[in-house]
Amino acid sequence: MAKDKKARRPKAETPKGFRDYFGADVTERKAMLDTIAEVYHRYGFDPLESSGVETLDALGKYLPDVDRPHAGVFAWQEDDGDWLALRYDLTAPLARVAAQFRNDLPSPYRRYAMGPVWRNEKPGPGRFRQFYQCDADTVGAASVAADAEICAMLADTLEAVGIPRGDYIVRVNNRKVLNGVMEVAGVLDPADPDKHEHERGIVLRAIDKLDRLGEYGVRALLGEGRRDESGDFTEGAGLSDEQAEVVMGFMAAKRENGEATCTRLRELVAHSTIGSEGVTELETIAALLAAQGYGPERIELDPSVVRGLGYYTGPVYEAELTFEILDEKGRPRQFGSVAGGGRYDDLVKRFTGQAVPATGVSIGVDRLLAALREKGRAGATLQGPVIVTVMDRDRMADYQKMVGELRAAGIRAEVYLGNPKNFGNQLKYADKRNSPAAIIQGSDEAERGVVQIKDLVLGAKIAESASLEEWKSQPAQFEVPRADLVTELSSLLEKY
Amino acid sequence: MAKDKKARRPKAETPKGFRDYFGADVTERKAMLDTIAEVYHRYGFDPLESSGVETLDALGKYLPDVDRPHAGVFAWQEDDGDWLALRYDLTAPLARVAAQFRNDLPSPYRRYAMGPVWRNEKPGPGRFRQFYQCDADTVGAASVAADAEICAMLADTLEAVGIPRGDYIVRVNNRKVLNGVMEVAGVLDPADPDKHEHERGIVLRAIDKLDRLGEYGVRALLGEGRRDESGDFTEGAGLSDEQAEVVMGFMAAKRENGEATCTRLRELVAHSTIGSEGVTELETIAALLAAQGYGPERIELDPSVVRGLGYYTGPVYEAELTFEILDEKGRPRQFGSVAGGGRYDDLVKRFTGQAVPATGVSIGVDRLLAALREKGRAGATLQGPVIVTVMDRDRMADYQKMVGELRAAGIRAEVYLGNPKNFGNQLKYADKRNSPAAIIQGSDEAERGVVQIKDLVLGAKIAESASLEEWKSQPAQFEVPRADLVTELSSLLEKY
Repeated sequence: MAKDKKARRPKAETPKGFRDYFGADVTERKAMLDTIAEVYHRYGFDPLESSGVETLDALGKYLPDVDRPHAGVFAWQEDDGDWLALRYDLTAPLARVAAQFRNDLPSPYRRYAMGPVWRNEKPGPGRFRQFYQCDADTVGAASVAADAEICAMLADTLEAVGIPRGDYIVRVNNRKVLNGVMEVAGVLDPADPDKHEHERGIVLRAIDKLDRLGEYGVRALLGEGRRDESGDFTEGAGLSDEQAEVVMGFMAAKRENGEATCTRLRELVAHSTIGSEGVTELETIAALLAAQGYGPERIELDPSVVRGLGYYTGPVYEAELTFEILDEKGRPRQFGSVAGGGRYDDLVKRFTGQAVPATGVSIGVDRLLAALREKGRAGATLQGPVIVTVMDRDRMADYQKMVGELRAAGIRAEVYLGNPKNFGNQLKYADKRNSPAAIIQGSDEAERGVVQIKDLVLGAKIAESASLEEWKSQPAQFEVPRADLVTELSSLLEKY
Repeated sequence: MAKDKKARRPKAETPKGFRDYFGADVTERKAMLDTIAEVYHRYGFDPLESSGVETLDALGKYLPDVDRPHAGVFAWQEDDGDWLALRYDLTAPLARVAAQFRNDLPSPYRRYAMGPVWRNEKPGPGRFRQFYQCDADTVGAASVAADAEICAMLADTLEAVGIPRGDYIVRVNNRKVLNGVMEVAGVLDPADPDKHEHERGIVLRAIDKLDRLGEYGVRALLGEGRRDESGDFTEGAGLSDEQAEVVMGFMAAKRENGEATCTRLRELVAHSTIGSEGVTELETIAALLAAQGYGPERIELDPSVVRGLGYYTGPVYEAELTFEILDEKGRPRQFGSVAGGGRYDDLVKRFTGQAVPATGVSIGVDRLLAALREKGRAGATLQGPVIVTVMDRDRMADYQKMVGELRAAGIRAEVYLGNPKNFGNQLKYADKRNSPAAIIQGSDEAERGVVQIKDLVLGAKIAESASLEEWKSQPAQFEVPRADLVTELSSLLEKY
């Protein structure tokens, strides 16, 4: 029987690809999200918190992995036959909300949302199946002023959380320009927009991989296809050399400033109505941003930005951090993208049949937090509590009274609640908790009406580096009258 | 084809039992949780955020609904055969974390956690399938000082969020005393603890329903069973009259103060070792709380508290709000329970085989928030943004510049981004957003270098109640030099 019981013991493990966040990991993320929410709020965005669960139907098939619809989602069937699923982003739920509450919400509807999303993907190093997103979207605004504003807000947000100007760039492009290029290259026929859709999808994803594959790799994907180092073959778009050159020319269209870039783009899409419209939108965005003082050192036009998602219909944008870090092999590389978004005018239409213009950005919370740690703007350890040690188990009420006074004075403090027998364990516990001080009162001290304050910060410094002289001149433990405990400890903590 | 497409349009609906939170609902809950986290932090608790998904195995069968294990959980099977599930509370994940990281975590481990949990239950009015919990637990502390501390923290927390002293009571009991009573009543045999387990479960749940069913209903459940108004029959514990009287006597054991209650309890469990131990623990808790100044007006001993969950092994506690509200039929009733918890020494053992003492509390976030709204301590509408209206579509850059200046001065503001053609719609939008002011600059004002500030708060008041004289003396719209926009608007907003 006993053996049988043991065999049924569950494993204490997170499911594969999931993780726990402890202490400072939680508070740091929270502090960053609070700062972001402040910026979003100042820009007039209101919070929305939808539930983690949606009907599978409402979520739709908008994951980047278009080859496996519904793969990538955690879904299950209810007893009544309905399929439910965990949201994989915050945009699909917004589209559902915008449709469901379209008669009640203000229009335009500006909302921000922060929270976990889930992806049923193969986990890998640094790739988790639950992670945070932090989005801001404007639904119901057709004007590209809405796109320009979100780019400005993105720049402000990065600076507010601690990325200095010069260490980031927001890059803007327009899908309409890309469609113009496709038209010129002969893979988009305005009279039959569904034709060549498959090829265009491949072209889109190929351009999006420019950073990772380089020009040569992208060129291969535009043509016959590409075999990677592992031997896996990725299907190409089958473009002719001439067609591929048009696309490659587009990606290289960036010039010394926005005006020159637009001039070059206009040449490339000269014969495409949609393409010309896209260039005009880019010019408008640049002008609106310039009026508010966002120059190309913060927000620039860049034709190589396409964003992988299929649903974008107009301006697309992303924020890249430009400072260098060392990769896992010790080589320097740019930190890279931390946020992206664009205009998607068809997501709400899925529900209502009516086109609703919308644009928005999503910040990769974990990536941005990692960047802040790189820049030394996050990563502090949590300030531990003052530990009131237990010298005499029977005097627990006295120790609780002490800790009550400390807390009433706003000092983070606790009584040691483990087995008090071994005093060394109490100090080890204080050390593990990163405690600034320990309070000690044995029966002798109690009789004399005093307590000992042990300065653990100084103690650690002395243990680490100080000479005997310093040790003597700066005692890491001192006695104070019991009545002065709060004031004496407060002035000690002010030092740290 | 078109018809076919229409038929496949997804419904814009939250799944049954789920809901969305908008605007102030989100910020109010956040403000409350931030305040709670401050109190928990001051008490030495560290944050933990585990993922929403756990292995079904790790979650275990600890839902109150013991008759349908695994019913009540959203679960699905992965391709590799593993069963995953959404967490139904924050205690089961803590037990898993405490087991998984037992060699790294400090001991005792004090953690708090806040976040959504999911229950696959039949939704009803006010009953949702996703809701927030907010827990604090101490793992690895055998001393009832840990229980006392959590009761004190619960009282502090309620006052911190805005429940005045006198409007709440934390009630404490001990499962060991209840076990003593069970022993005296003959449904617990210390030599064979598994015997009568089914009956004890029924007794436990019956006592827990005292509030709802009254003494008569509980008495019926202790005996033959109970048929409710709808005709449904609930099985009883089958106790004899004599046995049932022992249990009923226990529930009525509360006396004028803690000391007298303990004296009465000692009489009831006189011949039970475990029962006497429980009474001693209650005395210790009362003494520790008294030493910190928590008298019975905040925390009292109350034998009728049992908490429904099967896993509690020692002290149990709950916070009840004692002020009256009107129920859906307009009858006054006490607001009732908003938090509860207790000692559970066996949850970590499930994983490791080693008993780990633990105790903790869970706050029902939505219930507490509803209580704050009742007390007028929450429920404010979100302050809307200042709306810069668009009089002249071609001058969007000017309007964006204005709004940029306002934001830089810390003023929540936005340019109207809908179709600007109908000016009335712009003011309706401002109204819907609860905007304090609108900024207006047509070409005439632009030429003269001025802007109009429309005071929407005053405007609304005038529209509502003021006489013609007041209207004239306090113009709700006034002109200021463009250069003074920020300062003039700032001083206006200071009034609100």
